Amino acid sequence: MKKAYDVISVHNEPKAEGLLKSIDGKNPLFVCVTGTTETAKIPGISAAGKYPELTDYTPPADAELLLLGRCKCISGVPVTPEGIPTPALITRSALRLADIPVLVANGGLRVKPCIPFLDLGGNIRTGKAVENVGEVIQRATIAGESIAKLADYLVIGESIPGGTTTALGVLLVMGIDAEGKVSSSMPGNPHELKIETVKAGLRASGEEFGSLAEDPIKAVSCLGDPMMPAFAGLVLGAATKVPVLMAGGTQMGAVLAVVKALNRHVLDNLAIGTTRWIIADKTSDLRGIISQIADVPILAADLDFSRSKFAGLRAYEEKVVKEGVGAGGATVAAMVKSGGSITREVLLREIERNYEFLVRPG
Amino acid sequence: MKKAYDVISVHNEPKAEGLLKSIDGKNPLFVCVTGTTETAKIPGISAAGKYPELTDYTPPADAELLLLGRCKCISGVPVTPEGIPTPALITRSALRLADIPVLVANGGLRVKPCIPFLDLGGNIRTGKAVENVGEVIQRATIAGESIAKLADYLVIGESIPGGTTTALGVLLVMGIDAEGKVSSSMPGNPHELKIETVKAGLRASGEEFGSLAEDPIKAVSCLGDPMMPAFAGLVLGAATKVPVLMAGGTQMGAVLAVVKALNRHVLDNLAIGTTRWIIADKTSDLRGIISQIADVPILAADLDFSRSKFAGLRAYEEKVVKEGVGAGGATVAAMVKSGGSITREVLLREIERNYEFLVRPG
Repeated sequence: MKKAYDVISVHNEPKAEGLLKSIDGKNPLFVCVTGTTETAKIPGISAAGKYPELTDYTPPADAELLLLGRCKCISGVPVTPEGIPTPALITRSALRLADIPVLVANGGLRVKPCIPFLDLGGNIRTGKAVENVGEVIQRATIAGESIAKLADYLVIGESIPGGTTTALGVLLVMGIDAEGKVSSSMPGNPHELKIETVKAGLRASGEEFGSLAEDPIKAVSCLGDPMMPAFAGLVLGAATKVPVLMAGGTQMGAVLAVVKALNRHVLDNLAIGTTRWIIADKTSDLRGIISQIADVPILAADLDFSRSKFAGLRAYEEKVVKEGVGAGGATVAAMVKSGGSITREVLLREIERNYEFLVRPG
Repeated sequence: MKKAYDVISVHNEPKAEGLLKSIDGKNPLFVCVTGTTETAKIPGISAAGKYPELTDYTPPADAELLLLGRCKCISGVPVTPEGIPTPALITRSALRLADIPVLVANGGLRVKPCIPFLDLGGNIRTGKAVENVGEVIQRATIAGESIAKLADYLVIGESIPGGTTTALGVLLVMGIDAEGKVSSSMPGNPHELKIETVKAGLRASGEEFGSLAEDPIKAVSCLGDPMMPAFAGLVLGAATKVPVLMAGGTQMGAVLAVVKALNRHVLDNLAIGTTRWIIADKTSDLRGIISQIADVPILAADLDFSRSKFAGLRAYEEKVVKEGVGAGGATVAAMVKSGGSITREVLLREIERNYEFLVRPG
């Protein structure tokens, strides 16, 4: 009997159903890969922080929220300039409900979280570029191999402000047509600003569309962000042994392109896990990006916040935030692990409970 | 039917047998807690490095050996001044044979290993004392809770040169009679030098025997080392959920005293895993230390290197090294996980193979 989950197979349905079947009744581990980039501080490019400078605190705060249920390096929770709360709230609620363990990995952070984390990259000092990409991929691959022994499958998410712009950069320089296709956490997707930013990066590094299709390490070094080598390495190490649900939006395209260029044999063990909001988004095209890279299924958590009692959550239906911190993939994993008893209604109630607790004064 | 392992129950036999039964057929995770301390650089106090300054490289090199099968931050493997190889060789061989996953945790290192690791403490900058003991214990407790979800039980070992002297310090200031009882990796156990070192530490901190019996955090801050809060926190977090085999020699006494002072309810879920060499050592008294603290069983891996073809390994029978990097506990776990098919002979052959590979020229 086929179980019913609030999950939509939106691309490559037979493979998506196969993946759902293969993780049925299995125990996942959720890994959140964090990083910061100077790109996020370009005014207007990221909503992950009320002020551009605050984006350095968003990933460690997200990581703390995942592990502790509250943030330590900031008070309250990360919010967009409009006060919409971080999707880490969804991830935390889903993982908690389904008792899924969490590991935080650091690809390169300016501000360290006040929790234990797996160090894959180190701190960013110069902020000028992504350093030691090859070495970070190697380390993360070793970590992925080890971690794969600890769970039946992995769900890997990310928290890095400005990540869709760096994703655009890596996708373009690797020859994937992603102009106007990457997503945004902002209500109006600032495609022009992103393209302009990437073009400046291409000029500065003497590269052009497709010129680094065969050199993913240089692509990430020149135009990427520190989340990418850590995430790609974890996938490369783990997916030789267990299925990996890459939890995110269009940024997963850049990671997938890097993974494919380094070892296409792992592609059969991968799926993208995202949210319905990403799929429904008219300003971006996740399917259009992924289908250019590999025949990988996409699963979307069919979340619906339209009837939430909180304006901050209803806003998710208004095309803001949409995804992040692996919210979609964590939700899919929680629904499957619970055998369908965690529905979108159950999850929304838990999210509302956590939100209320986190934002109440005092 | 009772299975036969090359394991000796040397203290609290009924509980030891109960622990062996409870982990039968279960999947462990091995965690190696690393740290460095200035105490190791006092001439004559530690054998974990040919020259005192090199002791900063021993723990990261041990960690690399565990995860990769070879060291990266040094060439070859860590050796004592006489050329006896690190017990990490035993640990690596046991874990590899039994396919037991490994996680490296950093309690406080001067030199970072070139592998992924769980950051619990951070780098040591001043080297003057152990900083942020309370905070590290908190973080490590959170990590222990998370990690406990990933395995049926934990085996936790340590790599910190100079660790028996800091153990003596913490034991004495917490009121445990450990004078002349801590072990040593050197052929002649330099008890006088250790006691003198600890007495200088007690004077400098204005403390005396037993004065911090109720304040384990201050005890570690004044006289301990950065391995201790990370190790104790992991135990405190994990042992509320799963059994924990504390893998080591007399240093485990200091960690156990800290754990007991912070939460005696976890004591029933603990055992000490060590080597026969520690038990047979006439210059130290593990049982005498542990029995003053808690009713915790001791299991010893019945290793025998007397017929090894390598002088460097036969030396283990001559009262050098004896234990470290969780060698005894990892061996016990490997023997139990394999249902007894990993005997001490099987393990010795694997250790010899790895040793040959690691020390051959070029």
